[in-house]
Amino acid sequence: MTVTFRPLLTSLGLSAALLSSASVQALEVDKAIEYRQSALRVMAFQTGPLGDMVQGDIDYDAEDFALRANNLASLAHLPWEAFIEGSLQNDDHGIATEAMAVIADNRDDFISRQETLVDETDTLAQMANDGAEFDELRRQMGTVVDTCRGCHDNYRDN
Amino acid sequence: MTVTFRPLLTSLGLSAALLSSASVQALEVDKAIEYRQSALRVMAFQTGPLGDMVQGDIDYDAEDFALRANNLASLAHLPWEAFIEGSLQNDDHGIATEAMAVIADNRDDFISRQETLVDETDTLAQMANDGAEFDELRRQMGTVVDTCRGCHDNYRDN
Repeated sequence: MTVTFRPLLTSLGLSAALLSSASVQALEVDKAIEYRQSALRVMAFQTGPLGDMVQGDIDYDAEDFALRANNLASLAHLPWEAFIEGSLQNDDHGIATEAMAVIADNRDDFISRQETLVDETDTLAQMANDGAEFDELRRQMGTVVDTCRGCHDNYRDN
Repeated sequence: MTVTFRPLLTSLGLSAALLSSASVQALEVDKAIEYRQSALRVMAFQTGPLGDMVQGDIDYDAEDFALRANNLASLAHLPWEAFIEGSLQNDDHGIATEAMAVIADNRDDFISRQETLVDETDTLAQMANDGAEFDELRRQMGTVVDTCRGCHDNYRDN
């Protein structure tokens, strides 16, 4: 109810700061979870054809590979700003999330893994842009997938 | 049920082409709608702070403005590949979508508007990277928002 009333209260000249921090927190967590799940879904969609190509499930197409690799690289830094305090599993928000509570105790490692993903996807995109051989791209794609998996194994509950 | 069985059938050496085209189509439309809605949600999230800054709802921060503008520019070309045949309103998929059926009759205009969005968000990002004045950025942000709105007015049912 507090969330529903916020626009009305704001229009009456009451700033967010005057509302209880709990209500502001609830609204932000809601949006943050929806956003990061969307961003990760978009990354997965763009990763799909790359995985299919390196596994031989679809024909390798250098142009499409480069396009997807560049998309993935530009997406790789997006989701992380939304893993805000109070938005993990076991936090009091009532929203389904696979983001494990243990992230809160391992922020440095979580950030380090994000930076690795950004670096490895950048490398993949640069290699594709530079016309690298398929075997090299396949090897680098393996590194990218391992990076995804490493974080999922530690911090994603599914 | 067909969708559930597909991985099994595929692992048995039956290619997707051997399955009914209806089942493949259903799977693709499902994924396409989920993907494009996610991509547009991510764009909206990144646009939020830009809009808040040009409207004076939050303080202008040149660094954050440039970051968001670059994010938006790299996202602007993503959603459109997923407006595939059979995925619009009134098509037989049973999924909630705001993508109006009239898009099918106006593909050239729809594509032209996508290209305009890509161009205008690229311009905004470039201006921010080049250190443009806030008034110039605000004006270009108005053009970007008008581009969003133009497409929504014609092709989004909400």
